[in-house]
Amino acid sequence: MTHADKLHNLRHSLAHLLAAAVLEIRKEAKLTIGPTIENGFYYDFDLNSPISDKDLPKIEKKMKEILRSWKEFESEEKSEKESKKYFKDNVYKLELIDEIVGKKEKITFYTCGGFTDLCRGGHLENPAKEINPDAFKLDRVAGAYWRGDEKNKMLTRIYGLAFETKEELESYLKMREEAEKRDHKKLGKELDLFTFSELIGAGLPLFTPKGTLIRDLLDGFVWELRKQVGYERVDIPHITKKELYETSGHWDKFKDDLFQINTRENHVFAMKPMNCPHHAQIYARKQWSYKELPQRYASTTKVYRDEQTGELSGLSRVRSITQDDAHVFCRFTDAKVEMENIYKIVKTFYGSFGFILQPRLSLHDKENMGDYLGTEEVWLSAEKSLREVMEKNSENGIEVVGEAAFYGPKIDFMAKDAIGREHQVATIQLDMNQPERFDLFCINEKGEKERVVMIHAAIMGSIERFMSVLIEHTAGAFPLWLSPVQVKVLPISEEKHGSFAKDIYKKLHDANIRVELDDSNEGLGKKIRNAKIEKIPYLIVIGDKEKDSNTLTVEGRNDEKLENITTEEFLTKLKEEIKNKK
Amino acid sequence: MTHADKLHNLRHSLAHLLAAAVLEIRKEAKLTIGPTIENGFYYDFDLNSPISDKDLPKIEKKMKEILRSWKEFESEEKSEKESKKYFKDNVYKLELIDEIVGKKEKITFYTCGGFTDLCRGGHLENPAKEINPDAFKLDRVAGAYWRGDEKNKMLTRIYGLAFETKEELESYLKMREEAEKRDHKKLGKELDLFTFSELIGAGLPLFTPKGTLIRDLLDGFVWELRKQVGYERVDIPHITKKELYETSGHWDKFKDDLFQINTRENHVFAMKPMNCPHHAQIYARKQWSYKELPQRYASTTKVYRDEQTGELSGLSRVRSITQDDAHVFCRFTDAKVEMENIYKIVKTFYGSFGFILQPRLSLHDKENMGDYLGTEEVWLSAEKSLREVMEKNSENGIEVVGEAAFYGPKIDFMAKDAIGREHQVATIQLDMNQPERFDLFCINEKGEKERVVMIHAAIMGSIERFMSVLIEHTAGAFPLWLSPVQVKVLPISEEKHGSFAKDIYKKLHDANIRVELDDSNEGLGKKIRNAKIEKIPYLIVIGDKEKDSNTLTVEGRNDEKLENITTEEFLTKLKEEIKNKK
Repeated sequence: MTHADKLHNLRHSLAHLLAAAVLEIRKEAKLTIGPTIENGFYYDFDLNSPISDKDLPKIEKKMKEILRSWKEFESEEKSEKESKKYFKDNVYKLELIDEIVGKKEKITFYTCGGFTDLCRGGHLENPAKEINPDAFKLDRVAGAYWRGDEKNKMLTRIYGLAFETKEELESYLKMREEAEKRDHKKLGKELDLFTFSELIGAGLPLFTPKGTLIRDLLDGFVWELRKQVGYERVDIPHITKKELYETSGHWDKFKDDLFQINTRENHVFAMKPMNCPHHAQIYARKQWSYKELPQRYASTTKVYRDEQTGELSGLSRVRSITQDDAHVFCRFTDAKVEMENIYKIVKTFYGSFGFILQPRLSLHDKENMGDYLGTEEVWLSAEKSLREVMEKNSENGIEVVGEAAFYGPKIDFMAKDAIGREHQVATIQLDMNQPERFDLFCINEKGEKERVVMIHAAIMGSIERFMSVLIEHTAGAFPLWLSPVQVKVLPISEEKHGSFAKDIYKKLHDANIRVELDDSNEGLGKKIRNAKIEKIPYLIVIGDKEKDSNTLTVEGRNDEKLENITTEEFLTKLKEEIKNKK
Repeated sequence: MTHADKLHNLRHSLAHLLAAAVLEIRKEAKLTIGPTIENGFYYDFDLNSPISDKDLPKIEKKMKEILRSWKEFESEEKSEKESKKYFKDNVYKLELIDEIVGKKEKITFYTCGGFTDLCRGGHLENPAKEINPDAFKLDRVAGAYWRGDEKNKMLTRIYGLAFETKEELESYLKMREEAEKRDHKKLGKELDLFTFSELIGAGLPLFTPKGTLIRDLLDGFVWELRKQVGYERVDIPHITKKELYETSGHWDKFKDDLFQINTRENHVFAMKPMNCPHHAQIYARKQWSYKELPQRYASTTKVYRDEQTGELSGLSRVRSITQDDAHVFCRFTDAKVEMENIYKIVKTFYGSFGFILQPRLSLHDKENMGDYLGTEEVWLSAEKSLREVMEKNSENGIEVVGEAAFYGPKIDFMAKDAIGREHQVATIQLDMNQPERFDLFCINEKGEKERVVMIHAAIMGSIERFMSVLIEHTAGAFPLWLSPVQVKVLPISEEKHGSFAKDIYKKLHDANIRVELDDSNEGLGKKIRNAKIEKIPYLIVIGDKEKDSNTLTVEGRNDEKLENITTEEFLTKLKEEIKNKK
């Protein structure tokens, strides 16, 4: 049995135990369903009167009490008639039985510690022995419609967390607490990075000056890395006739997910949900000699997707998505060098923030060659290139057969953040399909038309999503080069130290440091607390000592303290740190 | 009689003369209408067989011949019956007569030199004496539907140009010839700056690497000027719920001109045709103290307008318009300083390209105070500020009463280009309406809510349109700082001078000069011609002399020649020129 199966059985057994405990406390409870979920389980009950989070300790205590007697799950197959008789007062179970019968499946009942439920199975052999009573915890109560349909009755759902060991539960709780503190929606407001407007609509973030600064700096970093390897910026509109996507093949697949526009002349336009076909049209503007390739086009531009309101969340899931997108058009034989350049940019970019990358190469499945574009020979050659690039640049790469897109193999990157969560980030995709559909070629050495390939090369992918990950990864304490305010000057007394503080402020400002002067009438303690909330990397406290000696006392965000340094020395330190993006 | 009236009468008399001349050559010609237009006139004929541009000299000769006998226009009022009898074989004139009758207007016939036409009047007294036969010219033949309706018959339209003097005609022809050479659509293709795709659609330009570089540099220049006076960038989505425009008041006025979107959840969204309401929502995110004002938000972002296909033209009129937009939110009392800062940016920006600016202050009309928002006192005060700013910064400002927008006074700028054409460019508008509609305020010194004002401050307005103007103004020979390729290195012999040429190329490239090396096998003459077509500012020709002396020979685009200078000296010159944006 795999670890995942074992965990599933543990959590599933606990769902039964929860139902049994609730039934002991609330005799009238009608049981419905109780599946396992990520990190735990839940059970939905139909109750006469509401229960709340306050009731959970009592239920949990009851679970632990009866757990001792849960030594074995016994299963029994029953007829439809028997089953319906057993659950004659429970409309939910009757509905479930009808469904099982409809699917011509067997009806099974499972009993443990005297408690019986309609169930498909998948439990621990001996819950009393195998469940650590300190490794599970009831989490919270929520309302939930029967079958998720708002036309049905609202039930009471109790969520539980469950792991194999107490340590795992504790570590999960700690991570969750930390994640809540780092929630980018909360920090985004506190740090004044972005906002939403009801008049404009959900999923359409507005970026404030500070948030925009971060966006632009991130984008500038990626551009700096790209420029070094010959990328050029191009500019494209956000809309297109639908013919573009009919030609690219996207229309059939994505037409329901994109915003459609009917023009005054009755044409159907679409807001672009991706940039590749637009870039392909720029490539197609002229005939290229192989000597002029690769052409590498980059655009930081918004794409739009008609997401459902219920699925939107902060910057993680939005309707207006800014992509730092790029596409390389090159000969098949040049693709490896280009992909390696992209790989290096990904490593440098994510590495600079301390993310740990896990690359994953998606390959074709030779059993289903009919699903892919191009010959197996071409695929093997492309995959060999990608594999060599991955192996040369990472030690932890993994390969997955059959996960490639139909148009080519790809490398996806997962990034592990500061509290251990994994996020899907960049991807490098080789595309043999769009060049075919748009008839993109170059003239080779022999004077013949040669089909080119296209490489998709977004680094952040979505700037919004990357920002949400970065805010939570750094808990809002961005590296110096990215901090909207890098230094704050705090005079202890405005009257006595205000003028010296202004001089310092001006020196830093003129040296292009993003500096603020707190000349409010607050006490020093309050000034420092305010600056800490803003997560400002360096605070310069100005008092008599500093004024008299014409030196600075600098407090770093991480309790680093510099004393008696000159403004010039501090500037040198800042410039160095900014340059190194640390 | 004004000069414009006189010119109108001249051109109108020539339309008659054209009709008379055509009738003499083509007896069967049916006359229709012949109005004056900018720079001349036309007349539409229904002919049995086509005529072409080749026939124009003959017709022109005939006009000059009969002109001698055109000494006086005589008018005669006729009844409907008489008129219809006169034109019984001409369905066009019969239709016109019916219209005049329908409007209960008088029917007048005008006769000169024996030629009679249905006409409203407005001629010269003595064409033979007043028309200079060397000051008019038949221009071209075109097809035109009767009444501009494609369901009607296609007529033959003959265009003529006419001025008072021969010199004016010649100067117009010269300007037009120059304008054709400078046509941005032609140069845009030759210089590879932008392209269009049939799959994406008309009016949706795609900018190539070179065109995008120019866009970004122009935008960077504006941003540099703005940054100095405290602007901050913000970022906004391109769509919004229609509620935003219902609140701002734009929906009623512009709903037919914007792209509307029906979402999968059946909401009506719109693509933004302007940015002010979005910026207003960023301002509205929090409560501001007067101490935190002004807030100055800038975004370079595309707006979209559902223009009719027939009205689109190159970059001059597009559906995707990139605005270098900015809005200042400030107290009424701070508006003057802010407007002066914008005024200075406009002057610096347009001045750097050699445009001559003509500012125009649009004022309210005190007779119609009901049409305006706010009291006359506020208007007078706002206008006084704008007037003072204009007078302090320009000597040629003019004022126009009654041309203000309902929400506030404004200054518009016209820019005269290198061949004398005027273009409407930047505008500074004070807006007292949107702050009212969006309830935008600050907390003033007394702790009370105080309504703020909003200043609209786009510098280029539309980057596309500005680029079309700039391409034609410079004839594609952009100033050095803006040239996509600044220097081209041309080795005379690849074999003998290739290596030295590469060294020079590398030195310039490493110093951030946009340099290209022409290492093709073409002869020097061809290399130079190619570079001239690309309007590259500086060519470095590398031959034996340069290689042996380790110095450069540089040919400037304007026949400037530098000899025996070192690479370092040339670099210094380039850097200086780039810095000064000359």
